[in-house]
Amino acid sequence: MSKLKHGLRGLCVFVFFAMVSMALHAQADPLPSWNDTTPRKAITAFVQRVTAENTPDFVPVDQRIATFDNDGTLWVEQPMYTQLAFVIARVKDLAPKHPAWKTTQPFKGVLEGDIKAVAATGEKGLIELMAATHAGVTVEQFQKIVADWLATAQHPKFKRSYTECVYQPMLELLAYLRANGFKTYIVSGGGVEFMRPWTEKIYGIPPEQVVGSSIKTKFEMVDGKLDLMRLPDINFIDDGPGKPVGINQFIGRRPIAAFGNSDGDQQMLEWTAEGDGLRFMLLVHHTDAVREYAYDRKSSVGRLDKALDEANAKRWTVVDMKNDWKTIFPPAQ
Amino acid sequence: MSKLKHGLRGLCVFVFFAMVSMALHAQADPLPSWNDTTPRKAITAFVQRVTAENTPDFVPVDQRIATFDNDGTLWVEQPMYTQLAFVIARVKDLAPKHPAWKTTQPFKGVLEGDIKAVAATGEKGLIELMAATHAGVTVEQFQKIVADWLATAQHPKFKRSYTECVYQPMLELLAYLRANGFKTYIVSGGGVEFMRPWTEKIYGIPPEQVVGSSIKTKFEMVDGKLDLMRLPDINFIDDGPGKPVGINQFIGRRPIAAFGNSDGDQQMLEWTAEGDGLRFMLLVHHTDAVREYAYDRKSSVGRLDKALDEANAKRWTVVDMKNDWKTIFPPAQ
Repeated sequence: MSKLKHGLRGLCVFVFFAMVSMALHAQADPLPSWNDTTPRKAITAFVQRVTAENTPDFVPVDQRIATFDNDGTLWVEQPMYTQLAFVIARVKDLAPKHPAWKTTQPFKGVLEGDIKAVAATGEKGLIELMAATHAGVTVEQFQKIVADWLATAQHPKFKRSYTECVYQPMLELLAYLRANGFKTYIVSGGGVEFMRPWTEKIYGIPPEQVVGSSIKTKFEMVDGKLDLMRLPDINFIDDGPGKPVGINQFIGRRPIAAFGNSDGDQQMLEWTAEGDGLRFMLLVHHTDAVREYAYDRKSSVGRLDKALDEANAKRWTVVDMKNDWKTIFPPAQ
Repeated sequence: MSKLKHGLRGLCVFVFFAMVSMALHAQADPLPSWNDTTPRKAITAFVQRVTAENTPDFVPVDQRIATFDNDGTLWVEQPMYTQLAFVIARVKDLAPKHPAWKTTQPFKGVLEGDIKAVAATGEKGLIELMAATHAGVTVEQFQKIVADWLATAQHPKFKRSYTECVYQPMLELLAYLRANGFKTYIVSGGGVEFMRPWTEKIYGIPPEQVVGSSIKTKFEMVDGKLDLMRLPDINFIDDGPGKPVGINQFIGRRPIAAFGNSDGDQQMLEWTAEGDGLRFMLLVHHTDAVREYAYDRKSSVGRLDKALDEANAKRWTVVDMKNDWKTIFPPAQ
């Protein structure tokens, strides 16, 4: 008995220390999907410096604002922006109610997969598509349409839902920053109402911390209830120089850290860099044709050209996806 | 010695219980400036119901969004909106650099205190005033201009700074809601950049939780730095039907509680009321000509007419300032 007791106690002690060790290990490795290369070192060094009280680089918690682009920074944007895949699916869904679309551009092109014909309709065509697929419903109806589509749609290359095509290293980075007192925001050229239905569950970013492009809404009577109707008019384009404008408009503070992957993020990173005190700017460079995609200066989606030159010149951190990330996606659900 | 020890122990026990009693008392009275009348009872009943887990009215923390109008709801708006007092002061400040203003409306009227002449210039005149006093500087320069003005300006009736002309019962209400897991927002017709420099200190509401009217900004090179320049163009009017639009645009969730004092808040309260589950709508009715001001249906500033009828019809809570509030302002600093 005594031997058994002794053995049990030993086992308990072992389990206890194993758990402590795991806890310590977890604490010591908040970024397990990041290789021990420059970006990871730069991130952890920055966070340690701005959180060290009574040092020159310390930043109070309320000023620890970090902004993240979405397409290509937090989730896949190839072979086309997910929101464009949604537009195509929605045109197909709605087509039976609009027989004229079979013979009218840009709808005909979308239905027939004739991208050239769609592109030929230019901005006018894009606005018609946006009006047909994003407007004419209330804000809450649109949220449901988006959530329903995302629940079944699959990425053509990865054969998993779009919300599973998010970058595991970036999920860890978001959590790591929040654990260190940062408030994490999305600042995306994508539609704000296209992101808000799922960003809290997937990224831990609540709707009020999502900044994006938007169409106008109107407060009016809809089916006997006062509600917000979505109108076919552009309200705000949150891209390029619109990103610092949007950040100031929605957040009212300059970020101390900004994360992007394309020329559309250049001004957000520039404005972040121009603030006082220690700053952190990072670009995700898509270099992994096997595990994801490889593209930069010549890509029509998520082009990274001028911002890459500026990053190199100003020594912003650049993630080489192939070499700096151990894994790309979270495990399939 | 033993007697002394006994006495000391008794004293300690007494002090301990006195402290516990004070703590309990503090906990029991989060709204000491509110009389024990209907509004106070309605507020505490609402908060108790939405925070009681495993009951039908329970609301998860992340959905506890409360929106507050500012002018006339959180601070004094008579005899004129504080932002208008700022415009007048700024025109006087800038006048030496603009000699033509002495002979040109609406500036001449502002400089001479001729409100009729200013009013006669209509919307065009107001936009000129806005452009001259609110634009042509960077976002951060404007924040400093506002903060500097507020540091010395005094309210004409109360002879204290404008940020001391805030309502003590509402400060307690903001803190009480936050202590119960609510996220408190300002949703004001006033300029967002006019509020953000001071709302965190005065109300405990950080810049990113302030929604308001705005002018456009542009990301450009200013004095050799990339910065946000304020332009003389209206971007968004956050008033009346603009309030639900602004709330959706900036917060992306429908509030469960909304607080206002004028017809400009009617649609915000209506949209809040139309949501599912328990909701709370409150109007501050200015009925205290002695301690503050008495005005409603005929006032040109903060008119409360249609919204008061709707509040009565729909049994929204109406604060009778004279009878429901023990004190109006916090102690002078």
